[in-house]
Amino acid sequence: MPLTHFNAAGEAHMVDVGDKVVSQRQAVCEGYIEMQPDTLALIMAGTHKKGDVLGIARIAGIMASKKTADLIPLCHPLPISHVELSLQTQTDLNRVYCQTTVKTTGQTGVEMEALTATQIALLTIYDMCKAVDRGMTIQGVRLLEKSGGKSGHWQRDSA
Amino acid sequence: MPLTHFNAAGEAHMVDVGDKVVSQRQAVCEGYIEMQPDTLALIMAGTHKKGDVLGIARIAGIMASKKTADLIPLCHPLPISHVELSLQTQTDLNRVYCQTTVKTTGQTGVEMEALTATQIALLTIYDMCKAVDRGMTIQGVRLLEKSGGKSGHWQRDSA
Amino acid sequence: MPLTHFNAAGEAHMVDVGDKVVSQRQAVCEGYIEMQPDTLALIMAGTHKKGDVLGIARIAGIMASKKTADLIPLCHPLPISHVELSLQTQTDLNRVYCQTTVKTTGQTGVEMEALTATQIALLTIYDMCKAVDRGMTIQGVRLLEKSGGKSGHWQRDSA
Amino acid sequence: MPLTHFNAAGEAHMVDVGDKVVSQRQAVCEGYIEMQPDTLALIMAGTHKKGDVLGIARIAGIMASKKTADLIPLCHPLPISHVELSLQTQTDLNRVYCQTTVKTTGQTGVEMEALTATQIALLTIYDMCKAVDRGMTIQGVRLLEKSGGKSGHWQRDSA
Amino acid sequence: MPLTHFNAAGEAHMVDVGDKVVSQRQAVCEGYIEMQPDTLALIMAGTHKKGDVLGIARIAGIMASKKTADLIPLCHPLPISHVELSLQTQTDLNRVYCQTTVKTTGQTGVEMEALTATQIALLTIYDMCKAVDRGMTIQGVRLLEKSGGKSGHWQRDSA
Amino acid sequence: MPLTHFNAAGEAHMVDVGDKVVSQRQAVCEGYIEMQPDTLALIMAGTHKKGDVLGIARIAGIMASKKTADLIPLCHPLPISHVELSLQTQTDLNRVYCQTTVKTTGQTGVEMEALTATQIALLTIYDMCKAVDRGMTIQGVRLLEKSGGKSGHWQRDSA
Repeated sequence: MPLTHFNAAGEAHMVDVGDKVVSQRQAVCEGYIEMQPDTLALIMAGTHKKGDVLGIARIAGIMASKKTADLIPLCHPLPISHVELSLQTQTDLNRVYCQTTVKTTGQTGVEMEALTATQIALLTIYDMCKAVDRGMTIQGVRLLEKSGGKSGHWQRDSA
Repeated sequence: MPLTHFNAAGEAHMVDVGDKVVSQRQAVCEGYIEMQPDTLALIMAGTHKKGDVLGIARIAGIMASKKTADLIPLCHPLPISHVELSLQTQTDLNRVYCQTTVKTTGQTGVEMEALTATQIALLTIYDMCKAVDRGMTIQGVRLLEKSGGKSGHWQRDSA
Repeated sequence: MPLTHFNAAGEAHMVDVGDKVVSQRQAVCEGYIEMQPDTLALIMAGTHKKGDVLGIARIAGIMASKKTADLIPLCHPLPISHVELSLQTQTDLNRVYCQTTVKTTGQTGVEMEALTATQIALLTIYDMCKAVDRGMTIQGVRLLEKSGGKSGHWQRDSA
Repeated sequence: MPLTHFNAAGEAHMVDVGDKVVSQRQAVCEGYIEMQPDTLALIMAGTHKKGDVLGIARIAGIMASKKTADLIPLCHPLPISHVELSLQTQTDLNRVYCQTTVKTTGQTGVEMEALTATQIALLTIYDMCKAVDRGMTIQGVRLLEKSGGKSGHWQRDSA
Repeated sequence: MPLTHFNAAGEAHMVDVGDKVVSQRQAVCEGYIEMQPDTLALIMAGTHKKGDVLGIARIAGIMASKKTADLIPLCHPLPISHVELSLQTQTDLNRVYCQTTVKTTGQTGVEMEALTATQIALLTIYDMCKAVDRGMTIQGVRLLEKSGGKSGHWQRDSA
Repeated sequence: MPLTHFNAAGEAHMVDVGDKVVSQRQAVCEGYIEMQPDTLALIMAGTHKKGDVLGIARIAGIMASKKTADLIPLCHPLPISHVELSLQTQTDLNRVYCQTTVKTTGQTGVEMEALTATQIALLTIYDMCKAVDRGMTIQGVRLLEKSGGKSGHWQRDSA
């Protein structure tokens, strides 16, 4: 069984990370939510004045990153040291794009924290706009880059 | 401002649903996670014996549905009466597909609960397999159907 | 012992509300945070453009109202149907004033939810500005009005 | 598969209770923690003056009952209407005995809420006394009686 | 934008503390709740025998300190190493006064943990006495002193 | 007052562990749930195919270990580095036996985390089987061994 979240008997456990080195670790991930052009226009109208959908989604994402170990059964609790979500409206693609960076100084990586923050930020946009556009779709939620720890640096091919 | 999560001043609020009818409401949504064929093979090897990735993802999704109002800032807390996640391995598409049904008897719908359960179930699959496949991508998370409440029945076009 | 949160033996319990009528209930409360004029100016500069302290405080207050039963030991869990926080900068008084309204359709009142939302909104302002003004003080957190339930309408004397 | 928490495919789900009648439901359960006589004496010395171990355990139990659906994966969230824990020191048996009553008006029973409150109250006693008695043992945590709902009244044989 | 909780674009983020020194940090804060003399008398009657309002408020405050990062959106999660709440009845001032000390060994301070504990302890007193005194008011919640970290020692002027 | 969770005045506090050494710590505990032979047979039928009661209980236990500081009032929050639950069906004794190991690298021990995981795993078994066997009883929840920290190694006598 090469999946480390299971022991030799195939039973789930929280992997022992007690002997892993404490190091600075970072993960960057992305995702987006596709919507009707009118919905995107509504969001853009709100960003700089009132009805700040993206500002609320950003806060929801940051708060969700802190709940990752509560949500993902075998995740280790981690002292997150930095969370940043960049939300961009992309009118040519009819979507809001989210890129999230999370850092920690700890014994395991923060990919799950970055992905969870991204997912919940995009879901919050869905929630706030669903009365006008039920068909919005969340797409492309994935890791872009990670660094720190024994496995070292990983970066998605840009192809 | 046609987005109901903002008041006339453009400030976010939790919408007043006190006068909405208590009715049976249901939402069905879907999503999937794409991966390497070898990763999917590992998951399939585990499903019926040991290393049950999908069984754990299903539990994570059910538990997450109960945390929706904690995660999505303007969501109303709801007494969920039913949650069901169907997770299917699709070898021709190199992915695990998730379809989630949530029901309540309440004053607001359960789209957010169904979407949250789907997202966290897919993230849990990512977590358990990330050591062998960092590039997995979550796609197509969206509502399929909802019923109940004043807005009535909504179904995604199958085109 | 006239305090209902204790039984005849003086032991704490969660009061039995099973025979109380389900009715629409509302609570309104207020509070404010005093600060240096320069701090208030910083907040005001941010409200309409970027660095939106009050928008974030408002979201924190709404989310906190949903955690009230988690925080206050003997509080009953309640299906909140509406939360609204109004945050006003008052330059003549060097403070941000918060007024919160919470509604439910349930068997107990929502004073605690309104007070908790107010406290956490004001604490969030403290958090965001503490690097420039450690001396900020939270004052006057109190109930203004409540309605619904057997005890009926209560309103603070305006004197 | 006669266990209702699994569907026909043997997959876990949150059972659909949407068609069950809303009724007043009650559960009573018990449990105890055995300890050294000296430990029990310490607890008894504290109860009426200071170092109130049992008062804190009672609060922990009440608060835990509200977290039951968070802890037990397939439990439905429930609006608890009453929680009462009676904690008795029994010197002849070298133990603290706990009896817990929980009520709701809802679509499912509250056995899990009563058992969870009992367990966490007893664990809290363990926590507070573990520095002087590591060997304390929690025993006999079980349902005594339940009423309400379609399955009606159930009572443990007193034999 | 001199408020560090916003980046150069004015968007909220969780500040990067990854390069800050891990040091022992402490915060002390205070606050009080004003009430009718009869309400204070009820609390005082309970303190030493039964109906222990202050004992429950103290526990609520300690537990709330551990939820600070859950409540305050941009707060870092912290490993709290000590929490102490002193609650004093002050009959000449018709109030209960609370002073809270929190310590950590970490990369950020614990002002927010100390303030949150104080607020929730005072709110718990409100909850337990509100049936006899709806007009109670929470006042003067503020930092008294902090130490540790780069910003060093800070103490409120006693004037 | 020899109970360290109270200060000199007999008031509860979260003990100051700021000066304790950070070391690897481990706790092992056990417990079991007694049931009807038919109930145990149902669980055993499910373990290797579908209706995986023990797999779900294991996940519930792991997740509960991460909530320990939320549930036990005076517990310090801890960065858990490992959790493992072994659940065995014992037909001769009509019970499911649970042994749990938890590790951390921190300033306090993890007995409470191991006990909480055990309790919630056993409660989850109760929840999933209660429709066929209301009389199941949780027994013998206790510490077997602990190591690390100033108090050193402790092991239960096997007598």
